[in-house]
Amino acid sequence: MEKKIPVGVSARHIHLSQEHVEVLFGKGYQLTEFKPLSQPGQYAANETVAVVGPKGSFPKVRILGPARKATQLEVSRTDSFALGVKAPVRESGDIAGSAGITIQGPAGEVTIEEGVIIAARHIHFHTSDAEKWGIADKQKLRVRVGGERGVIFENVIARVSPDFALDMHIDTDEANAAGVNNGDTAEIID
Amino acid sequence: MEKKIPVGVSARHIHLSQEHVEVLFGKGYQLTEFKPLSQPGQYAANETVAVVGPKGSFPKVRILGPARKATQLEVSRTDSFALGVKAPVRESGDIAGSAGITIQGPAGEVTIEEGVIIAARHIHFHTSDAEKWGIADKQKLRVRVGGERGVIFENVIARVSPDFALDMHIDTDEANAAGVNNGDTAEIID
Repeated sequence: MEKKIPVGVSARHIHLSQEHVEVLFGKGYQLTEFKPLSQPGQYAANETVAVVGPKGSFPKVRILGPARKATQLEVSRTDSFALGVKAPVRESGDIAGSAGITIQGPAGEVTIEEGVIIAARHIHFHTSDAEKWGIADKQKLRVRVGGERGVIFENVIARVSPDFALDMHIDTDEANAAGVNNGDTAEIID
Repeated sequence: MEKKIPVGVSARHIHLSQEHVEVLFGKGYQLTEFKPLSQPGQYAANETVAVVGPKGSFPKVRILGPARKATQLEVSRTDSFALGVKAPVRESGDIAGSAGITIQGPAGEVTIEEGVIIAARHIHFHTSDAEKWGIADKQKLRVRVGGERGVIFENVIARVSPDFALDMHIDTDEANAAGVNNGDTAEIID
C-alpha cells in the first residue's frame, strides 16, 4: 500500500507565551488570526516580531497562534547561521538548553535564554491514518520527496494524535534541498 | 566495498569570463588567488562582486578562478528566492535559458541574460577512483550523508576525469538539510 502524505514547508516562525505576547504587544493583548494552518486550531497570526541574534536579524517573523506555555522560535539551519545562534535540531517543545535570542515587538522586547530550535522533520498522523498504515507514535520513518532533485529523509518522526491532520512538516532547507513546494506529495518508504 | 567520499559544501559563488572581469574590475585586470580549492587549478579569488536581483541582493559573492568561457552564478534555491530569480537546477556549464542577474564590481556593472543556476549535486572522481569502484562518467548515484539528520540524495551525477580530485559537491541547502559540514563523509549506496 502506498503511503502518500502532503508536504507542508515551514518557514521560520515563532510561538509565544501569553506573557511574552503582552511584553511585546502590550498588557492584555491577544493574538489575532490571519489564516488557519493545517493542524486543527492552529493559525498564522496577523502579528509579526523582529528577532535579533549576535550576527544578524530578521525583521518580520510570523507568529503562530494560539499562545503556548513557552516561547519557541523555529528556524532553518541556514537561518541559524545568519542569526549567529547555535540552534539544535529538536522536536517542538523540547527546548531545554537550546539557543537564545532577542525578540522585539511594538510595545517592548524580550531576550530568551533558550527556545530557538531547528525543528526535527516529522509527520502528523491522525490516529486513524496511523492505524491504517501500522505506524506508532514516535516511530522513525524514511520518507521520499521530490522529483529530479529527489531526497530520502531518514529519521522522520511520527507524531500520532486524534487532534492531528495528516501532514509532513519539513523546513525550507529541506524543501529546497529536495526542490519541493508546499502541497507536494511525500511517500513513506519504511 | 565501502565507497566513502569527502563532502565539499559550496556556498553561493560566481565564475566570470575574462571579458566580465575587465568590465567589473577594469581593463586588463587579472583575478588574484586567495586560496586553492579541492579541484586542481581552481581557486577562490580575493575579489568579490555584488549580485542584484529583482527582489534582493548579495553584496559580497566570492569569485572562483581562473576566468571561464562564460559567466555563471551558482546559488542555492534559498538564495534564488531571496534574489527573486527562477534559477534552474543544472550541471555546471549548462546555462542556456537559465536565469539572469546584474553583477556589480568596483569598475562597472554587467547584466547577464542567463548564467544563474542551482548546481546539480555531483561527485568529482579521479579516473582511478571511478575505475576502482566501477563508476562511469554521467552515472547517477544515490549517496547517503549526515547523522541524526541523515539524508539519501538521489540523482547525484558522477563526473570522471584525470583532472579531478575525489569530492562530493552539494550546496548549502543540501548541507543544512542533512546537517553536514565541509569535510564530512558521504557514502555511495548505489
